[in-house]
Amino acid sequence: MPAEVARIGLLGSGTVGSAFRDLVAERAEAIAGAAGRTPEITGVLRRTEGNFERILEDSEIVVELIGGTDPAREYVMRALQAGRHVVTANKQLIAQFGDELFDAARESGVQLRFEAAVAGVVPVIRVIQESLAATEITKVFGIVNGTTNFILSEMTSTGASYADALARAQELGYAEADPTEDVEGTDAAAKMAILARLAFGVPVALDDVSYQGITEIQPDDIAYAKELGLSLKLLGIAERRDGGLSVRVFPCFLYPRHPLAPVEGPFNAVMVEAPTITEITMSGPGAGGVETASAVLGDVFSILSGRAPVHAARESLEIVRDISSSFYLHLEVADRPGVLAQIADVLGRSGVSVRSVVQRGLGDDARLVMVMHEGPEARFFEALEGIALLDFLRSQPRAIRVIEEEFV
Amino acid sequence: MPAEVARIGLLGSGTVGSAFRDLVAERAEAIAGAAGRTPEITGVLRRTEGNFERILEDSEIVVELIGGTDPAREYVMRALQAGRHVVTANKQLIAQFGDELFDAARESGVQLRFEAAVAGVVPVIRVIQESLAATEITKVFGIVNGTTNFILSEMTSTGASYADALARAQELGYAEADPTEDVEGTDAAAKMAILARLAFGVPVALDDVSYQGITEIQPDDIAYAKELGLSLKLLGIAERRDGGLSVRVFPCFLYPRHPLAPVEGPFNAVMVEAPTITEITMSGPGAGGVETASAVLGDVFSILSGRAPVHAARESLEIVRDISSSFYLHLEVADRPGVLAQIADVLGRSGVSVRSVVQRGLGDDARLVMVMHEGPEARFFEALEGIALLDFLRSQPRAIRVIEEEFV
Repeated sequence: MPAEVARIGLLGSGTVGSAFRDLVAERAEAIAGAAGRTPEITGVLRRTEGNFERILEDSEIVVELIGGTDPAREYVMRALQAGRHVVTANKQLIAQFGDELFDAARESGVQLRFEAAVAGVVPVIRVIQESLAATEITKVFGIVNGTTNFILSEMTSTGASYADALARAQELGYAEADPTEDVEGTDAAAKMAILARLAFGVPVALDDVSYQGITEIQPDDIAYAKELGLSLKLLGIAERRDGGLSVRVFPCFLYPRHPLAPVEGPFNAVMVEAPTITEITMSGPGAGGVETASAVLGDVFSILSGRAPVHAARESLEIVRDISSSFYLHLEVADRPGVLAQIADVLGRSGVSVRSVVQRGLGDDARLVMVMHEGPEARFFEALEGIALLDFLRSQPRAIRVIEEEFV
Repeated sequence: MPAEVARIGLLGSGTVGSAFRDLVAERAEAIAGAAGRTPEITGVLRRTEGNFERILEDSEIVVELIGGTDPAREYVMRALQAGRHVVTANKQLIAQFGDELFDAARESGVQLRFEAAVAGVVPVIRVIQESLAATEITKVFGIVNGTTNFILSEMTSTGASYADALARAQELGYAEADPTEDVEGTDAAAKMAILARLAFGVPVALDDVSYQGITEIQPDDIAYAKELGLSLKLLGIAERRDGGLSVRVFPCFLYPRHPLAPVEGPFNAVMVEAPTITEITMSGPGAGGVETASAVLGDVFSILSGRAPVHAARESLEIVRDISSSFYLHLEVADRPGVLAQIADVLGRSGVSVRSVVQRGLGDDARLVMVMHEGPEARFFEALEGIALLDFLRSQPRAIRVIEEEFV
C-alpha cells in the first residue's frame, strides 16, 4: 500500500525553492519509509504565476521561501490562521514578526518551523529548542553570517583590502550584488535576535540588538593581530549579564585556541554555554541553495512525524547595554616624545588598563597598537573620545573588541 | 493552577543518577512553563533499596541510569512493554539490544530515547534522527570517547608515555580504575554501532564494528607525527562504501586543518557528511555527571512535549570490511646498506605506494618513518607481514592510519 501523501504548498521559486523541489522529489520515498507519509509539492507560487488562495486551500504544509517581509508576513500569517503548518527560511520575518506568528501558530495548534533561518544547515534552532529546552542557557554566540566570514578569511589569508575581498566573495557567489545586509551586520543582528529569543525565552526585538559590521576593517588591523596570534571574526553574542540580557554583533579578535578561531570561509558556527553542559559547538555551511533546502526539508520531516516546539515567552529579562570588553586600539601618531604618556594618561583617567603595547616607527609618524584589559565599555569609549582630540593623532583611532576567554 | 505532574521512575543512583535528581529539582518549574507539565521523581531504585515493580507501576517515564546490560535490559524491556516511555544513557544496552527494544517501543506506542548514550551532551542522536532524517547521510565519524582523547592529548602535549597519561586521566577522573572498555576501543565501537544504525537505517551489530584501541601507541609515534604536523585521535568512522557499509574504530593521524584536529582533552566531536549538507560538526564534553544528566533531561523534556523518533530499519546494506586507507609506518632497522631498498621492494610487490620517508640514524640502528599513499588495506597488511619477516628489523613494525582528506 503506498504511503499517504502530505501536500506541500511552496511559496517562492528562486535558488532555494528549486533546490527544495528537487530534494523533495529525490527523497520522497525515503521520507515515506521513515515518517509514514510521502511529501509532494502540490502547488508553487511564483512571482508571475500561481494563486496563493488556491495553494493554501490545497496544502497542509506551506513552505515559504520568498524572503523579505512583504508579502511573506501576510502569507505566513494567513496560512497559520487557516490551520496550516508553516516552514520558512526567512530570518527577517521571524526576527521582526516572530511573536505574532508564534501566537497564531499556538492558537491554531499548528507548527511554525524555521531551522534554515539561522546558520543554514547547522541545526542550532532544533538543538536550542529541543535538546536544551530544559537547560538554563547562559550564552549563545557565534559566526552567523557566512559572507562576512568569507571576506575576513580572505583578507587574513591574502592580505586583500575589504573592497577586494568583497569583490572576490561576489565573484564566488558568497556575497550578493548589494551586500549591505551582510556587511553592515543587520543580517547577523536578525539571526541573533532569533537565537536570543529561543535561548532565553524572552521577546527580543531587532532594536534590542546593537550591531556593527565589517566595512571599516583595515588590512593593517588584521596583519597586526595575526602577529599577536589573533584572528578576526564577526561575532554575534547573546548572553545573560547582570540579571539582564545583552545581544550584540561586532567584529572582534579571538585567541588561537578559541573554538571559533578555526572557522573559515563561508562556514557558520554557534556555541551554546550553560553550567550543566559546559559548552556545545556546532558548525557547517551557512548558506547555499541545496544546504538551505536540506534544512527546510528537515523541518518538513519533523512536521510529518509529529511534535510542535514551544514558543511561549517564559522569562522576563532587561536588555543590558553597558558591559565589559577588552579592546584592541590602533593609533597613528606623530613620532615625538611624550605621546605614549599622554595616551596612557587619558586611558588611566577613564580607568582603562593597558595589557600590551606595540609601537613602530613609520617615517615621522609612529603606529601604536594596544590591547586593553577587560573593563566597562562606556569607560573605554569615553577614553577613546579623549584620545581622538589629541593633536598629535594622524588618523582616526580604530578600536576592535578582543574575546579574552581562555579555552581548554 | 499548578501544572500537572509527570511521574518519573529513576533506576540507578550513581553519579549521573544523583546529578539527574538535582537537575530535575532545579529545573522543574522552568520545564513546567515550557512543556506544560512538572517532572517529578516519584521513585528511585538503588542497588540495595527500592522495588522495581512498584516504581514501574507508579511512573509514566522510566529513566535507566544503572549501566551494563543486566538487569538494565530486562527493566527497560518491561517498562516499554508496560507502556512507559524510557530514557537511558546506556550505550551497551542500545548497541547490543537496540533492535528488540525499538520494536517493543513501537509496539507499545511509547518513546525510547538515548541522547546521553553517545557523545554526552553533544546532541548527535537528535540531529541525526530528526534534523537529518530526510538526508541521505554518507558518513558519520568522530571522536566518541573522551577518556582516550584525553590520554592522547596528554601524550601529545607533555610527551608522556601511554601508562603515565592513563594514570593522569585516572587521577583527574577522566578514566575509570578499570579503563579496558575505553582504551581497547569497545566503548567507541558500541557508540559507532548506534550512530551507524541511526544514520543509515540498518541494523548494526557490535560484531559488525572492527575496532582497535590506543594501548599500543608509543610517544615516539606522536612525536614524529607532530613534526609532520599531524595529530593523533581515536576515530570512529561509519560510512557507505562500495554499496555497503563500513563501521570502524582506530587510532589515526589527522592533518592540521581537519575540523577534528583541534578537539582536545575529554571532549567529543562528531561530523556528519552528505551531499546536501556538505558537513556538520558538533562538539562538547563527552561525559561528566551533570553533562550526562543534562542530556537525559533533554530527552525527558522531549517526551513531555510529544513526538516519537522513528527507529524502523529502512535500508539494507552489507558490511564492507576491505577498504582503502593511508598508513603511517614506523620501523626500527639495522643501519646498513640495502635496507630501504628491501622494504620498498616488499611494499612495491603488494602494490603499496610510498608518499614520504624520514630516516634517522640511531647508533647502529636507524629509524624509518614512512607515510603511504591511500590503497586497499589488505595489500598494506600483506606487505606489513612481509616486512615483519625481514631479518634487519629491530622491533615490531608499528602502523597507524592517516586521514588524508583535505579540508577548506
